Amino acid sequence: MSNIQASLSKAKKEIESVGITDNIRLDENDQSVTIIDQVKLPNVLEYKKISDLESAYQAIKKLEIRGAPAIGIFAGYMIFVLSKKDEDLPFDAFFENFEKNKEYLNSSRPTAVNLSWALKRMEGIVLKNKDKDVKQIVSLLKQEAIGIHNEDIEMCLKICENGLSLLKDGDGVLTHCNAGPLATSFGTAQGPFLLARARGMNIRVFADETRPLLQGARLTSFELSRAGVDVTLICDNMASIVMKNGWINACFVGCDRIAANGDVANKIGTSGVAILAKHYGIPVYSLGPTSTIDMNCPDGDHIQIELRNPDEIKNMWYERPMAPSEVKCYNPSFDVTDHELLAGIVTEKGIVYPPFDVNLKKLFDENS
Amino acid sequence: MSNIQASLSKAKKEIESVGITDNIRLDENDQSVTIIDQVKLPNVLEYKKISDLESAYQAIKKLEIRGAPAIGIFAGYMIFVLSKKDEDLPFDAFFENFEKNKEYLNSSRPTAVNLSWALKRMEGIVLKNKDKDVKQIVSLLKQEAIGIHNEDIEMCLKICENGLSLLKDGDGVLTHCNAGPLATSFGTAQGPFLLARARGMNIRVFADETRPLLQGARLTSFELSRAGVDVTLICDNMASIVMKNGWINACFVGCDRIAANGDVANKIGTSGVAILAKHYGIPVYSLGPTSTIDMNCPDGDHIQIELRNPDEIKNMWYERPMAPSEVKCYNPSFDVTDHELLAGIVTEKGIVYPPFDVNLKKLFDENS
Repeated sequence: MSNIQASLSKAKKEIESVGITDNIRLDENDQSVTIIDQVKLPNVLEYKKISDLESAYQAIKKLEIRGAPAIGIFAGYMIFVLSKKDEDLPFDAFFENFEKNKEYLNSSRPTAVNLSWALKRMEGIVLKNKDKDVKQIVSLLKQEAIGIHNEDIEMCLKICENGLSLLKDGDGVLTHCNAGPLATSFGTAQGPFLLARARGMNIRVFADETRPLLQGARLTSFELSRAGVDVTLICDNMASIVMKNGWINACFVGCDRIAANGDVANKIGTSGVAILAKHYGIPVYSLGPTSTIDMNCPDGDHIQIELRNPDEIKNMWYERPMAPSEVKCYNPSFDVTDHELLAGIVTEKGIVYPPFDVNLKKLFDENS
Repeated sequence: MSNIQASLSKAKKEIESVGITDNIRLDENDQSVTIIDQVKLPNVLEYKKISDLESAYQAIKKLEIRGAPAIGIFAGYMIFVLSKKDEDLPFDAFFENFEKNKEYLNSSRPTAVNLSWALKRMEGIVLKNKDKDVKQIVSLLKQEAIGIHNEDIEMCLKICENGLSLLKDGDGVLTHCNAGPLATSFGTAQGPFLLARARGMNIRVFADETRPLLQGARLTSFELSRAGVDVTLICDNMASIVMKNGWINACFVGCDRIAANGDVANKIGTSGVAILAKHYGIPVYSLGPTSTIDMNCPDGDHIQIELRNPDEIKNMWYERPMAPSEVKCYNPSFDVTDHELLAGIVTEKGIVYPPFDVNLKKLFDENS
């Protein structure tokens, strides 16, 4: 085992010792995938076995499983589990079912890039091996699904280490939304806090509740407090006073898509956090895998923002509607943080500093 | 009637023609005060008669009536209604009851400055006239309570006119929390939108929902949409993208307390709005009466911030808790917006521009 592998293996055990890292697992009989039903958090920690296509579709659609990487991992395992049921079919019938399953799963959340990416990757295995025995193809699908999961784990662990290198004992960090192990195997934006905790470092985390879906309240504050991290939940509009109080040394946020110039699309509210941080002189880091960097996208203006249902603002979670039914809402799911507001982009391949256009290009050239 | 009075009277009728301006009224028999139960908004518009001390106490405590000026107006009327019941008592017994009522009402919301201010003002009437017949004192109390209300109306109308002078047809304005007629007889921060509507001007308002108490969703979006104002509700963390989209020409926010240097304490999140606006080059105006300007308070650092119950963040309004019970919350009710972030302070005596320390002093000197 190389030094890198040994240190990753150590980090893996460390995060496992404090965090919930078993939120997606392929069951031993290869007939189901067990997930944590994230809709029930933080009140109930319930594991749920998913074995058929419709349940898998609903699990993604209803956000029982969410977080782009987690959805990708889940989709890989599920398309394998569904293929396994068909392993005695001749190839044509097998492939016909595979395509139907793939298309239906893919339609569960059309904007989730990792979903279609994982399904396409699994399809590639089938197409590349169509001359082989169907049982053999299914066996290769299992390897590929495990590969997708393991790659995510390795990526997360490297990001956790790189992110943690930016912090020192006693630091206060503000974070937004959820990019811990519930969203991506071992965590990206919130992973370093778990690693810090396992290593006995004291990091004080302030978690934005992240309206309207409340991922910060329901998931981040749950994951971190359960791991023993010193976490304080705040409303999104309290980030300014928390920074003004001098409690924040850095902001760690995730990323859904990064343009070639370093503009970052992430959960709605991220750009606000970054502007406040700039005002108070606090560095902001976006943490995520290089797979979210789209060198074909020149800047944030080319990233389309998904608009979601007004119901999420007016009714969701509440006992009764909190705004009149006739009132319009604007409910974008993401915003774009200008690259000039970022101190760095933390990836599994290292930390990229400004100028981002030059250094992101270098990152890909060096690693190609 | 002077020109000023005529124009105020016109503005009053205009706002009455679109807004709900009868949320506090002394009933004709002088035995009760009718309010809108704001806790039930926006689902139910229900008027509620309050005739006894305990109901009045609970109405303030439970936020059935809220908004600093509205509480002051209500307290004035209520202490009169309670005194009216005692008008046949000899002075000493009358005054003993008056003091008990006053103290108890005053304890319903200890941080509401207008509450103690209005009660003290009513007490002053009793003390100044203690040699008069009790019935006569009670009659003077009625005049004083009506005076408190009328002064608030006049103040609001002047602020509405001054605020509206900053806007032009077609402008987009972002606002935070609620300072419309539900909070203060004819509105301060949101009053100009009602006046604009009555005058056929098209102002597009974006209302922050204002977590955790959701005054923007429950009250502002309700008041404005009911008046036919073009209002769009957003989560607090969407202010940045709305500004970036180029939809906002100005921000109108209220004020709870203004220091001599122009620092403004207002609902939590206001400072964040102001920092974002500065980043995007959008002017921010704080609208409120000169009574909120405290020339004895040198700057924002001298304003103490009330901390509220974590329950408001984790449980309030929800069907089930949205964060684990063991998670800490930081829940300040206000924050301080640095005077350097403000383009102007809009009062009933005019608009004060920077340098605020000089011009606030001038405002008081000129008007003294």
